[in-house]
Amino acid sequence: MGKEFLKLTSVNELLDIIKNKIDPVLKDSVEIVSLLNASNRILAGKIKAEEDLPPYSRSAVDGYAVMAEDTFGASPENPAYLSLIGKIEIGEKPEQSLKSGSAIYIPTGAELPAGANSCLMIEDTEKFGSQIEVMNSVSAGENIIKKGDDIKAGQLLLDKGSRLSSAELGALAGLGHNQARVFTRPEIAIISSGDELIPPGNKREGSSIYDINSYLLGSLFQEWGLKPSLKGIVTDDKAELKAKIEASLAADLIVVSGGSSVGVKDYTIEVINSIAEPGVFLHGLAVKPGKPTILGLLNKTPIIGLPGNPSSAWVVAAIVIPAIINRMRELPIESRIEFFKNSITAELTEPISSTPGRQEYFPVKLTEKKQARPLYGKSNLITTLVDSDGLVIIPPGSEGLAQGSQVEIIPYPPTKGLIFKEQDIDV
Amino acid sequence: MGKEFLKLTSVNELLDIIKNKIDPVLKDSVEIVSLLNASNRILAGKIKAEEDLPPYSRSAVDGYAVMAEDTFGASPENPAYLSLIGKIEIGEKPEQSLKSGSAIYIPTGAELPAGANSCLMIEDTEKFGSQIEVMNSVSAGENIIKKGDDIKAGQLLLDKGSRLSSAELGALAGLGHNQARVFTRPEIAIISSGDELIPPGNKREGSSIYDINSYLLGSLFQEWGLKPSLKGIVTDDKAELKAKIEASLAADLIVVSGGSSVGVKDYTIEVINSIAEPGVFLHGLAVKPGKPTILGLLNKTPIIGLPGNPSSAWVVAAIVIPAIINRMRELPIESRIEFFKNSITAELTEPISSTPGRQEYFPVKLTEKKQARPLYGKSNLITTLVDSDGLVIIPPGSEGLAQGSQVEIIPYPPTKGLIFKEQDIDV
Repeated sequence: MGKEFLKLTSVNELLDIIKNKIDPVLKDSVEIVSLLNASNRILAGKIKAEEDLPPYSRSAVDGYAVMAEDTFGASPENPAYLSLIGKIEIGEKPEQSLKSGSAIYIPTGAELPAGANSCLMIEDTEKFGSQIEVMNSVSAGENIIKKGDDIKAGQLLLDKGSRLSSAELGALAGLGHNQARVFTRPEIAIISSGDELIPPGNKREGSSIYDINSYLLGSLFQEWGLKPSLKGIVTDDKAELKAKIEASLAADLIVVSGGSSVGVKDYTIEVINSIAEPGVFLHGLAVKPGKPTILGLLNKTPIIGLPGNPSSAWVVAAIVIPAIINRMRELPIESRIEFFKNSITAELTEPISSTPGRQEYFPVKLTEKKQARPLYGKSNLITTLVDSDGLVIIPPGSEGLAQGSQVEIIPYPPTKGLIFKEQDIDV
Repeated sequence: MGKEFLKLTSVNELLDIIKNKIDPVLKDSVEIVSLLNASNRILAGKIKAEEDLPPYSRSAVDGYAVMAEDTFGASPENPAYLSLIGKIEIGEKPEQSLKSGSAIYIPTGAELPAGANSCLMIEDTEKFGSQIEVMNSVSAGENIIKKGDDIKAGQLLLDKGSRLSSAELGALAGLGHNQARVFTRPEIAIISSGDELIPPGNKREGSSIYDINSYLLGSLFQEWGLKPSLKGIVTDDKAELKAKIEASLAADLIVVSGGSSVGVKDYTIEVINSIAEPGVFLHGLAVKPGKPTILGLLNKTPIIGLPGNPSSAWVVAAIVIPAIINRMRELPIESRIEFFKNSITAELTEPISSTPGRQEYFPVKLTEKKQARPLYGKSNLITTLVDSDGLVIIPPGSEGLAQGSQVEIIPYPPTKGLIFKEQDIDV
């Protein structure tokens, strides 16, 4: 009885389908922003070094620029002696060249003089007038950062599609950039579907329940650097859902949560297909949670139906949406989606049983000993998403994972994601 | 010769010193923001559930509310039969009670009727008029989410000091909150010190070098949910540094990078002590990188001297600043600072030698096999910060880590941190 899911799509098939069906409509949606406005944004082109970094060899210590050979064999018992012939100022070109048997005072970061190949730490010396007593030897290259050590002129620093965090932004500054060319933040319309839903902030009565998904997905998309636009709640009414989707067509992507299961009130597919071609091209993912997932296109605008259960919607969004955004930007879709890149292995404290056929993502808590403890019986609760530290992946062919086995865990980042800015939020 | 570091402070001593010296001046700096503006903010109070979530027992499937006992022994070969006596709408209070031998149609998320203790999946049934053929048994509690399963009235959902990500914000919405009371974002003044520095965006000439730290630290503080205020570059001149620090006293925290080593131009301590009491209370951390770290107070405002080397400044900032902010907010300072909480263990591909006495943080790259490969010879470069996936901790008593040993790694989050908003940035 009822409509059944005919064929479930695997995660690998999903990525191919996304590649084939979705056009790179956002590939030229780029803007130039200042560095401190580029946090968590995605680079729209490659960044190569235009000159060496550092642009000259520098001292890594406060001390003396020397020829390493002049210090060989030096020790506190058997010091070497060098003539102090000058001083280099930070930020100034050295005027003198170093000759054998001499030393030039150099502070950390200053340019190494010609003739020098290393620096002595000041702690390894004593100064007596114009004589330096050397109580330690250095080897060639020691205590200096050579011209181009960090990056050489012409070398690739960052590839197109790189996400910009503090490290990348610091490196861009080091190469002289004070701004970055990045993809604009796509707008994602979020529609929550369900007769029982009411917005938080109101008084709950009877069998109503607060809408979690608008806020859960909205803040998840913020963490990814996307721009959520909350379109509100629709009841399980065809005309209402249709009107709400049509009112969302200015967005770059539309997400509907709920209304995608096999129940009699599930009009989502029918409604999507009634709005525009080509309509729904995928219904049912071989993923647990996530079976009732829907993917479609309204002309060129992707529309995604997510499960109504919040933690299921969260997991499926993480599997599907970054791949779609990458495709829309004509960035590579990797077999491992960004969110899942940094997996770790951990020992499972207890077994998990699983039904073969679907790839399962099961919430785990990492113990003090860095073992993974499955959060049984509560895998689909919002508080479990709060309490868990990551997801264990159970491959589709598996009947479960044995206690004590080394398993693959996708750890959540410290705040389970990344954030951006407040002024663009449409609530 | 020269000024030596007298005594280096260990990381554990550091946390005690922060507790004793710094006052909780930001403990009442709180504001109420809407949920989608609360991403990556820190809760200023506890959140308890005011009612059960879910507020009533719900079906987790599309199917039939039943008494589990009525299905015992049912199979495709030996089905059970139940009378279909009605239908429940999502969001409406069930009018009928269930009696033994009967079933009521229930969609996912609808309230369970009195008398029912489980739900049959529609896929396990066939409907013949008002008769339901049952081809599978369910146990009591199966396919339902019980009232309070997610969280019970009175239970603690989130503690004061919790960082709000999508999961926490979703849970807040589930409990009916549409806003959150969070700590305001403290302003951190950033001063870059060094005669050689010029701002990126200008043409570099001679021995000048681009200022990395303003942008590296500025975006790092953004990732933590703090408000960077770039005060620019000062040359190694006492009066200039003093004027710049005095002009930064309206900030909640002042960070000076560079100018904190033992070189002759290092006036930072002298300048800090000349501005206000109590001045510098710590110079020198038993941490590598990070030896030249300075901590002081200008009246109640913490001031932190970081190394000039960018990747060293980044690591030391991560060790010191979250603990100081927690103390200013009167939040617990844990022995493991927030940034370092989610450590993992990995096998070291090559040995690392270390000088005992300082706790060392060494950059590593995680291989395909999730082993940790040390990035030798480049540990202090900005491009290494870009290329590495985390830091391996070498304890202060250790002479190094052996190849093949299981070591503790602090993995960077996917973008090495977390972000916030653009409109508050003072550049």
